[in-house]
Amino acid sequence: MADTKFERKPGEKMRLGMFINAEGHHVAGWRHPDSKAGAGQDIAHYVSMARLAERGCFDMLFKADSQSTFGPDDVNIWKRSTSACQLEPITMFAALAMVTSHIGLVSTSSTTYGDPFHVARFFASLDIISGGRAGWNLVTSSAASEAFNFSYDAHVPHAQRYERAAEFVQVVMGLWESWDADAFLGDKEQGLYFDPAKLHFLNHQGKHFKVRGPLTVMRSPQNRPVIVQAGQSEDGRELAAETAEVLFAVQQRIEPAREFYADIKRRLVEKGRRPESLLIMPGVMPVLGRTVQEAEQKFEQLNKLIHPEQGVPVLSDMVGTDLSKYPLDGPLPPKPPINTQQGRQAVVYDLAQRENLSIRQLYQRLTGQRAHRVVCGTAASIADDLEMWFRSGGADGFNLMPLIFPQGLEDIVDQLIPELQRRGLFRTDYEGRTLRANLGLLTPVARKIVVTS
Amino acid sequence: MADTKFERKPGEKMRLGMFINAEGHHVAGWRHPDSKAGAGQDIAHYVSMARLAERGCFDMLFKADSQSTFGPDDVNIWKRSTSACQLEPITMFAALAMVTSHIGLVSTSSTTYGDPFHVARFFASLDIISGGRAGWNLVTSSAASEAFNFSYDAHVPHAQRYERAAEFVQVVMGLWESWDADAFLGDKEQGLYFDPAKLHFLNHQGKHFKVRGPLTVMRSPQNRPVIVQAGQSEDGRELAAETAEVLFAVQQRIEPAREFYADIKRRLVEKGRRPESLLIMPGVMPVLGRTVQEAEQKFEQLNKLIHPEQGVPVLSDMVGTDLSKYPLDGPLPPKPPINTQQGRQAVVYDLAQRENLSIRQLYQRLTGQRAHRVVCGTAASIADDLEMWFRSGGADGFNLMPLIFPQGLEDIVDQLIPELQRRGLFRTDYEGRTLRANLGLLTPVARKIVVTS
Repeated sequence: MADTKFERKPGEKMRLGMFINAEGHHVAGWRHPDSKAGAGQDIAHYVSMARLAERGCFDMLFKADSQSTFGPDDVNIWKRSTSACQLEPITMFAALAMVTSHIGLVSTSSTTYGDPFHVARFFASLDIISGGRAGWNLVTSSAASEAFNFSYDAHVPHAQRYERAAEFVQVVMGLWESWDADAFLGDKEQGLYFDPAKLHFLNHQGKHFKVRGPLTVMRSPQNRPVIVQAGQSEDGRELAAETAEVLFAVQQRIEPAREFYADIKRRLVEKGRRPESLLIMPGVMPVLGRTVQEAEQKFEQLNKLIHPEQGVPVLSDMVGTDLSKYPLDGPLPPKPPINTQQGRQAVVYDLAQRENLSIRQLYQRLTGQRAHRVVCGTAASIADDLEMWFRSGGADGFNLMPLIFPQGLEDIVDQLIPELQRRGLFRTDYEGRTLRANLGLLTPVARKIVVTS
Repeated sequence: MADTKFERKPGEKMRLGMFINAEGHHVAGWRHPDSKAGAGQDIAHYVSMARLAERGCFDMLFKADSQSTFGPDDVNIWKRSTSACQLEPITMFAALAMVTSHIGLVSTSSTTYGDPFHVARFFASLDIISGGRAGWNLVTSSAASEAFNFSYDAHVPHAQRYERAAEFVQVVMGLWESWDADAFLGDKEQGLYFDPAKLHFLNHQGKHFKVRGPLTVMRSPQNRPVIVQAGQSEDGRELAAETAEVLFAVQQRIEPAREFYADIKRRLVEKGRRPESLLIMPGVMPVLGRTVQEAEQKFEQLNKLIHPEQGVPVLSDMVGTDLSKYPLDGPLPPKPPINTQQGRQAVVYDLAQRENLSIRQLYQRLTGQRAHRVVCGTAASIADDLEMWFRSGGADGFNLMPLIFPQGLEDIVDQLIPELQRRGLFRTDYEGRTLRANLGLLTPVARKIVVTS
């Protein structure tokens, strides 16, 4: 149950992440005249986005990731998408660290098709290179096709992925504790590079991993990079409540969002953590116009760019039947019987009936934003919306997802951010030099966090 | 047998790599008054080294790597060394890509404790970020202790490591061929991001790996990053002759070096490759002085900084007995009987007898340079040495290893490089924008290279 008496401390600021994604978050964003097609592999494009976001005082840049694109049967859907063509995010953020100075750099990395020693080392190194701005978005790999790139015959099942993730993150945090913060001596006179009493072997032995340590990188500026997660399942919530410091979420409506928020904060307290030790930041796709109507037209213009070969399969999946054999400008076929996702099917059929929509109109309405919350409006009306979510316990902040880059980000930095700043809801300058300092998160106590053995 | 009639083409230039290593390559380099202790984790230090090396027109920066440091029993040796405290090289080079424009960036990555999909993706991404300057130094992990950080109970045996490496590199090269160079369309009108006819699934199925592909990064500027290796064993030579384009080597004397050179070039031809498709670049540690004597004194000064706890165990390993129980300033004990490395033991005992050296004098003489070739001299005398090796078929170039950073690198850039340039042995400006272009290597033919299936 959501807390109905939720209150913010006076002067408390919301947190904002900038979720960067090649040409844009809308599935057809790259086809917009203002998008630069091919930008997903262009480091100069990411540099300009990072600098723009830093000018907007964003807490962090965030990048999702997948270690596969698609299978041979899906090429005709994916050939219309930018997903196959992206820089690897850890290298990209190491590069961006050199051209930014305050913004956080949150890269995704999988615990299912990855190794804890590598992950601990990459993120510790990124934390040092960036002067304390690294974050690790821990995912368990939702794309089943990743399995086929890592010598597996099938995707690792959900429960097993989370079991492995729980052990994985303990190993990573343990490795980050290999060296006390004052282990380095550099004593030329005595010839002592480090103090061996301040070095700790991990000696982890668990079900999935056996890792001796120590990490080959000494303590990084944040003691440990910020841990970010996005899971909303029961397993995902438990793992987040145990280990995460930022939680991204897909939330369409305020009431379920408040319930989710309250549930997570309750779990934190149960685990002996302070409620403010994990920041909940749902994704939002803001579309800015001089009027609400202009913003809606912008969104519709993008939706019209969704190719039927891209939209129909996604809509087919939502209603549980192959729609490609029906006329695009005709109605949905009679509702087919399905065993799962009946709620989602009902929503689509209700909408179709209520507004008398064709298959084309439906996929245009529903598939561009990939289930995320779109808010069309003016800077003031969008700020109203975000403020309401923030003040009423729906969110500690938001992960903003422009439909197209760079234009959508420019609109946010030039219009929405100043409006939030005028209201005292968002910073006008960075508070500190590390991601952890800017997010207002406590620095984790130096060793030992938790070591499974 | 070395080719006794070896001749260089008129105007042919030697290749030079700058092997960067924290405070220096000498084991006690960090204790020198001109070294900045702790620089191994300081990105600003690497930035200044990279810019300096680029001013010197070096073909590439090279960084070695290990995924472990030491075990609990070795802490008293390693506490005197910089090895435990290094940035992860792929992230480091991604950062350096942003502050350099022409120099190659060669990072080490292991095929034994790594995964081919990750390696293919990291290096393709680095190649894009750097505009075509990435190189992959393929190693099979010589440090046995790496095993303990990756859930193994013991190091993978040599033959098995090379078998895995041979398959690994085929998978990586196959993944780099996932996308034809013209696969990207960005056709906004038709809504076609890429041409599906120019996408290729790898579908690799081998003894060690099963990888479907495609890579999630499109074709990189060099078609594929330059492949570098260092193996000198029979297995290592075969793998290099099949797949490498640059070969680092440890060579102390010109005659064995010429034999090694001829052997590798012969293997290339046997495998249907052109002799110039692989560049052989032994490591050299140049110590520059205004006179040869001054240079030798510099080297001796460093050798005196080797702590007995660091030097004695290495010398003990060379002679096959624990020397820590004998007086430091006394002679070696009687030669102990050993089964392996008898040649190395004999060299040490001969030297000790010939020059009447104590244990301390011996470890100072022998352990600072870690088996690499030290050349003390003036710019002219060192250039004479390198020119002789280059002209007589001992090397196509050198991987230079300053004993201390930054001073050793400054000496090379300010004194040795101009001398080589005056002799027409080294470039005065970069020929191209990619590592491959600067090395004069052919661009690999677009797909298909070799796909094991």
